[in-house]
Amino acid sequence: SHSASSDHPRPYPLPPTPRDNHVLPEDLKTPDNHVPRDPRLIRLTGIHPFNVEAPLTDLFDEGFLTTKDLHYVRNHGAVPRVEDPEIPDWQLSVEGLVARPFTLSLRELMQRGGPFEQVTYPVTLVCAGNRRKEQNMVRKTKGFSWGAAGLSTSLWTGVPLRDLLARAGPLTRRGARYVCFEGADKLPNGAYATSVKLAWAMDPERGMLVAHKMNGELLPPDHGKPLRVIIPGQIGGRSVKWLRRIVVTAEPSDSWYHIYDNRVLPTMITPEESADMPDTWKDERYAIYDLNVNSAVCYPAHDERVQLDSHSGDGSSSNSSYTLRGYAYAGGGRRVTRVEVTLDRGRTWTLAEVSYPEDLYRLAAEGEELYGGRIDVAGREACFCWCFWSLEVPLAQLRDARDVMVRAMDESLALQPRDMYWSVLGMMNNPWYRVVIHKEEDGSLRFEHPTQPALMPGGWMERVKKAGGNLTDGFWGEKTADEGATGAEEGT
Amino acid sequence: SHSASSDHPRPYPLPPTPRDNHVLPEDLKTPDNHVPRDPRLIRLTGIHPFNVEAPLTDLFDEGFLTTKDLHYVRNHGAVPRVEDPEIPDWQLSVEGLVARPFTLSLRELMQRGGPFEQVTYPVTLVCAGNRRKEQNMVRKTKGFSWGAAGLSTSLWTGVPLRDLLARAGPLTRRGARYVCFEGADKLPNGAYATSVKLAWAMDPERGMLVAHKMNGELLPPDHGKPLRVIIPGQIGGRSVKWLRRIVVTAEPSDSWYHIYDNRVLPTMITPEESADMPDTWKDERYAIYDLNVNSAVCYPAHDERVQLDSHSGDGSSSNSSYTLRGYAYAGGGRRVTRVEVTLDRGRTWTLAEVSYPEDLYRLAAEGEELYGGRIDVAGREACFCWCFWSLEVPLAQLRDARDVMVRAMDESLALQPRDMYWSVLGMMNNPWYRVVIHKEEDGSLRFEHPTQPALMPGGWMERVKKAGGNLTDGFWGEKTADEGATGAEEGT
Repeated sequence: SHSASSDHPRPYPLPPTPRDNHVLPEDLKTPDNHVPRDPRLIRLTGIHPFNVEAPLTDLFDEGFLTTKDLHYVRNHGAVPRVEDPEIPDWQLSVEGLVARPFTLSLRELMQRGGPFEQVTYPVTLVCAGNRRKEQNMVRKTKGFSWGAAGLSTSLWTGVPLRDLLARAGPLTRRGARYVCFEGADKLPNGAYATSVKLAWAMDPERGMLVAHKMNGELLPPDHGKPLRVIIPGQIGGRSVKWLRRIVVTAEPSDSWYHIYDNRVLPTMITPEESADMPDTWKDERYAIYDLNVNSAVCYPAHDERVQLDSHSGDGSSSNSSYTLRGYAYAGGGRRVTRVEVTLDRGRTWTLAEVSYPEDLYRLAAEGEELYGGRIDVAGREACFCWCFWSLEVPLAQLRDARDVMVRAMDESLALQPRDMYWSVLGMMNNPWYRVVIHKEEDGSLRFEHPTQPALMPGGWMERVKKAGGNLTDGFWGEKTADEGATGAEEGT
Repeated sequence: SHSASSDHPRPYPLPPTPRDNHVLPEDLKTPDNHVPRDPRLIRLTGIHPFNVEAPLTDLFDEGFLTTKDLHYVRNHGAVPRVEDPEIPDWQLSVEGLVARPFTLSLRELMQRGGPFEQVTYPVTLVCAGNRRKEQNMVRKTKGFSWGAAGLSTSLWTGVPLRDLLARAGPLTRRGARYVCFEGADKLPNGAYATSVKLAWAMDPERGMLVAHKMNGELLPPDHGKPLRVIIPGQIGGRSVKWLRRIVVTAEPSDSWYHIYDNRVLPTMITPEESADMPDTWKDERYAIYDLNVNSAVCYPAHDERVQLDSHSGDGSSSNSSYTLRGYAYAGGGRRVTRVEVTLDRGRTWTLAEVSYPEDLYRLAAEGEELYGGRIDVAGREACFCWCFWSLEVPLAQLRDARDVMVRAMDESLALQPRDMYWSVLGMMNNPWYRVVIHKEEDGSLRFEHPTQPALMPGGWMERVKKAGGNLTDGFWGEKTADEGATGAEEGT
């Protein structure tokens, strides 16, 4: 396969070198005993199925592009086993309400100079459950506990979905409105399948892709080997792996996984009530497509300590300041337009610096190829990737603050809120990301994130909850005598 | 001109019959002494220029479609005078980075069976300043005080913008990225002009239109007679009136009005600081295009009184409940997916009923015409119009509540926040819309909206501010002994 040649400097990042992973001992007794994996990944649902995120610091330290080693994984069951020699004969069908249904082998689909153009671009995938642990701390949802590392960015190579659809010819006059994707995984409730709107699938600004390479290599088993959909700007749950069928339909997918997963039901619906509300579940208004705007603090890390009188903890020699850093993203191709940090609980905000490494790919020469695909970024206005924020703060200010919080806004003026929107599946959690600052007896500062992923202990939400605090009030459950006094001061 | 025939029942609303307006006495000594207007409109910037909204109740009572009488108006200067006989010879040019620049008369543009297809559909226009009075109560912005009636919905007829652009042939390989619109109004800082992204202008889902009819009649002078742009889902400031030129460019519009208006600068920038920040003003990340999600309470109206022991105040015979009602909207074609009401300050929320009259136009027969244009709604997924919410509440619950608040969410999971995002121009204000409930001595309930438009007195924000309350804290400045007691209860 083609990989990036090093004969000229490229203005955009290339992925870090991946490790040589092996099948892990804990997977040997599972159906995934053929899947190499990185031992750093944190398992969120026991041993199997494989649902993992990287430690947040490790993810952030890899930079803009994530290796397959640390890319989050959301598997509903066993990983389909596909050996390399079988790949060229893998069959994909495009069918349903189309004029010219067809079946295609991966040999044809991947062929350079073949019937379909190959393109390459970076896309950040985000699990709808990213940051769900925080919701589970407020009230148990039906979902498992993602931390804030349920997102990853890779270079994906494949064929534009709209080119496949154009060849088939959707019959809009006969009611074609949706595009369903079906994977090869065998699950208790049938194949994993879901759908998006046909109008979006045909829109070049939406950048939907049928991908056969990740960071220039064949797809790893956990990421859909040999073929998957990539839906930029939408929740990861729409990017179906092990892709077998694309079906144009008049109605949204009727897959159990489309209807009973990846939805944000209205906040007042309890888990108990939700068990008997089929019409509510089927209401497409509650299905999640575009990601909402979100951000997190990565530095300081959870439990990081900073000495006030020595070095700054970020490796610099300065002992007077600390550079707060983290990520932000939005959905639907919308750019994050600002990131703001507060050290006084939202009374005042400071503008952070924001860098957009994705824009560096817009500098590629016209027609330039990477991994056998044309770099296809400059032709779109859309933003499909995370960005990074940073803010240098005098240590004295951190010492005097009780916490640091961050919020992002996107180009549609959507802004991360103070209040959490809890819902029964626990999805799309995006309130201000809050890190508590503790003053230790040794004179250092210790930082505490909201939670730790899975069942790992730690985080201020667990601590506040144990102390009887009310986490639902938009004030972090910390209404103390101290805060009462502050309120009184303000009243004078 | 063609108007709707009444020979068959239509499944969608038609506009109310407009009044026969005349030039008002107060306009006689202004340059607008040729413009008929409705005396109910509330002037927000003195007599002239004409910037107005309808009384909120009157606007809501007109229903889904707003007549020209009550449609909000945002004029930067004098209204260009165009007599009816001049209309056919009005010239529009399409130029700039295009292969085939051309100039067109309105005679050609409007011609049925001519070179361009005519289409008709409803669009809600919203001023970026809608609800700005609330921001001005917190801290004076540079903008004047819109109430919550800075939005209106009409049926617009014209030619798809993308068809005009396609005829001209944008030169994307030579850097074409923006479409600038220039009006004929003469202003202190040059013509009113602004731009949108070319990719959006070419996208049928965005539905951009060059319109020559409003509710089936030639455009009224205040609404762009004889030609204007209609940009659905974006702030009204992009829908340029008295349209003369469409220019395809490599950069956004350099008009003063594009750069120094319709922006949301970061919240910490003060009016004083903003005076000397040209690079910040020119940062396109802060330009507003898509509307953010918003909603308001229309019933109960400000100062409405409801007797607890007689009728319900909404005209029904029940004396046990009241039906709260209002509007909601979102931007970028995104549907409002839910509206929620709280009577306990955000602790719990109740789902309101939502109706979408816009969807009734999707039921039009294929090819059906209205006002000489094909009804063009069903071919898109996008939502371009406001919707209406309602919730029947027992009067006993209203009596026991201190206030009623409403919030909407759109399909990208953007949710109206508790906290206001103040910015120097005062735009896109969308926190929970709060109506205070007063218990009167005569046993009735009296309702108090946040503000009244322009310099009109009234509203809880003014009252709280006069009492020294802090309106910036996300708790409506009402931290009282009573609330302290409530907080203490929660702590037990």
